[in-house]
Amino acid sequence: MKKNVIVGQSGGPTAVINASLYGVVYEALMQKEQIGTVYGMINGIEGFLADTIMDMNSVEQSGELELIKTTPGSFLGSCRYKLPEDLNDDVYPLLFKKFEEYSIGYFFYIGGNDSMDTVSKLSRYAAISGSEICFIGIPKTIDNDLVLTDHTPGFGSAAKYVASTVREIAIDASVYDNKKSVTIVEIMGRHAGWLTAASALARKEAGDNPLLIYLPEAPFELAQFNDDLKKAFEKTANVIVCVSEGIRDHGGRFICEYSTEAQVDTFGHKMLAGCGKILENYVRNQFGVKVRSVELNVNQRCSGLTVSDTDLNEAEMAGRFGVQAALDGHTGQMVAFERETDTAASEPVHAAAAVSNAADLGAASASCVKHRNTVYKIHPVLKDVNLICNQEKKVPAEWITKNGTDVSDDFLAYSQPLIQGDVSHIMENGLPKYLYRK
Amino acid sequence: MKKNVIVGQSGGPTAVINASLYGVVYEALMQKEQIGTVYGMINGIEGFLADTIMDMNSVEQSGELELIKTTPGSFLGSCRYKLPEDLNDDVYPLLFKKFEEYSIGYFFYIGGNDSMDTVSKLSRYAAISGSEICFIGIPKTIDNDLVLTDHTPGFGSAAKYVASTVREIAIDASVYDNKKSVTIVEIMGRHAGWLTAASALARKEAGDNPLLIYLPEAPFELAQFNDDLKKAFEKTANVIVCVSEGIRDHGGRFICEYSTEAQVDTFGHKMLAGCGKILENYVRNQFGVKVRSVELNVNQRCSGLTVSDTDLNEAEMAGRFGVQAALDGHTGQMVAFERETDTAASEPVHAAAAVSNAADLGAASASCVKHRNTVYKIHPVLKDVNLICNQEKKVPAEWITKNGTDVSDDFLAYSQPLIQGDVSHIMENGLPKYLYRK
Repeated sequence: MKKNVIVGQSGGPTAVINASLYGVVYEALMQKEQIGTVYGMINGIEGFLADTIMDMNSVEQSGELELIKTTPGSFLGSCRYKLPEDLNDDVYPLLFKKFEEYSIGYFFYIGGNDSMDTVSKLSRYAAISGSEICFIGIPKTIDNDLVLTDHTPGFGSAAKYVASTVREIAIDASVYDNKKSVTIVEIMGRHAGWLTAASALARKEAGDNPLLIYLPEAPFELAQFNDDLKKAFEKTANVIVCVSEGIRDHGGRFICEYSTEAQVDTFGHKMLAGCGKILENYVRNQFGVKVRSVELNVNQRCSGLTVSDTDLNEAEMAGRFGVQAALDGHTGQMVAFERETDTAASEPVHAAAAVSNAADLGAASASCVKHRNTVYKIHPVLKDVNLICNQEKKVPAEWITKNGTDVSDDFLAYSQPLIQGDVSHIMENGLPKYLYRK
Repeated sequence: MKKNVIVGQSGGPTAVINASLYGVVYEALMQKEQIGTVYGMINGIEGFLADTIMDMNSVEQSGELELIKTTPGSFLGSCRYKLPEDLNDDVYPLLFKKFEEYSIGYFFYIGGNDSMDTVSKLSRYAAISGSEICFIGIPKTIDNDLVLTDHTPGFGSAAKYVASTVREIAIDASVYDNKKSVTIVEIMGRHAGWLTAASALARKEAGDNPLLIYLPEAPFELAQFNDDLKKAFEKTANVIVCVSEGIRDHGGRFICEYSTEAQVDTFGHKMLAGCGKILENYVRNQFGVKVRSVELNVNQRCSGLTVSDTDLNEAEMAGRFGVQAALDGHTGQMVAFERETDTAASEPVHAAAAVSNAADLGAASASCVKHRNTVYKIHPVLKDVNLICNQEKKVPAEWITKNGTDVSDDFLAYSQPLIQGDVSHIMENGLPKYLYRK
């Protein structure tokens, strides 16, 4: 008997989370013998509980499905709803009753740590309640902090945005190169510094700006920063500093908390500032040079025009592979990536040049990019979602170099393949055309 | 007798200021019978005074000249140096002695108001001192505030960046569309709101986000903003507000100054915040909804990947036309644009679709873009630089609508042609390849 599919998106959006949605929907619509209707839940599991769902078959019939793929943000809307720890809670039978009403056989949730927690709980409840619904997690996060996978869809495009933008900020800062200046770029990542580390890809050659890169994995001290900056000024007049929003001192206190007591607006209300602003102020007062802070903000995760083609293809592949896995009867699993060739050992990073994207998506089985003499190749696998949720993968200590101010060539070799390839957009009136939920 | 050319860049960079540099250098190198060496001054007139110049012929010989065109920022470096008002100052004979040493016959300065002031003073000094050097200004500014020209190179690309980014921020903000939120986007423009007005181009249809747009040309009051926001919430849960950095209240006080007295960091130092941050705080305390502020910052003027092809071509054209004008003996003039067909009257803005860019650059004489049934066409003219420098063109009052919270269709019709067309970049290692001064 045919069963229906339901798919949802959860947590913060990325530039390619909709490519995974496209992958799930496209693959599910192809499996006409086993799958009936493909539903999307509006605003994740929270919306599903309020019966806000939509029929994805109609999007396909309107000819607009393809446009979802290159639209940033969460097409279905999102939520930050955590299911209760106690599987005896009333919400579980309520949810499964709704699944039954809609004849759901396959459930897909696209998201990060918290979303995998939802997949874990639902699959465990299914096991104890005798439900045969298959629950599969599709990974998504710009933070790249999911364990048991080489990397996470969404990271490559965010990394490409960060690298490209930091390169341009460095150009902008260098136009008055006869005057000293400091530009502090604040990058997303509260606990894991993967995205901040990607700013190293901005260098046109080794030893170039950004000269200082601080991740939350290493403690940050103002006195040391002061010394680092003095040394950086020996190399160039215009220093670019990239910092993760979550940098903390040895005592574990966030640098962005260095101001909260004192900062109030004219009405006496507390103001929140990022660590970039705190450091901007510090440099202005300590060095007396021109200083500016730039917070890359949400554009890191929603910039459609700097999407990495590799990332986009892998995001789609994750969705399609997830559907195949569910049809094979797997449940309580997350789609993960395994890298077949480790480019870290052999690749001189800044010399790498010709890149041809040869993603093999027809079979939804592997993504392969030829990268100089080595071949970057990943293939999707399934991993127990219970081992993934509520874990956090940090940048390994051995990839953090120069006393916590830089990242290693191994990191560059790891991340470089992920930002390769450009995606062309349908343009309308000079702007990218995106698909919006009706 | 052959004379040499010198060209410089001044003021803040844009994404296409180097296209104008390319235009000047390319055209000058073509005129081999009249022009000898083409020099670039490093860091503008300030650098020239310190004898820091470079030979642009060598850039052409290295085959890299073409790459300058799509490199954002000021390739030659910039300065913010103002020549003395008193033409009897010693700096003038010093400068003209240097011009003579380098056999300069033609001087080109690419910049905004202040740069035109430099062109004005040098051409006036030339007139009283009997020098035959021709001084020509090439316009540049993302602010679009130069008078006597339809628009300014640099504005179109910045407007395209703003529109594209605000569209993506609106998508990002809408993913939790079951919860109320406000996103405040702070856009460059201290006195003129052209760039903030361009955020209206982000709308996918009329009446869509950004729902509130505040320019510095209209007074801004918190009480009115509070009312505006309440009305906006009647239309959507996720309100996008675009504000110019330079908005001021009825008393003329900058909104960004609403915090400076109270804001200090933990060391007791004053902190500077933008008006976006002030308004973020205000909304948080008044409305108790999720609120975020995004400062678009320098990326507005240095994003190479969102360059408008129309803008790029016009920037190049301005440079080439400037050289032709100088060879014709003109001096003390700025290259300006005249629009031949005013699309404002007839164009339904959000319906406009097919755009074919047919910039006629071979003759460096006119840029023409077919825009639905009307044709956008500009041609370069010369304007007396003395009438341009130290003036400021603001958004006309009749283009500011809805009690100072929106812009008119006439503005949209004016600005839409300027963001048309995309520019392809040479990519290397997943990032755009740019040219750097050696």
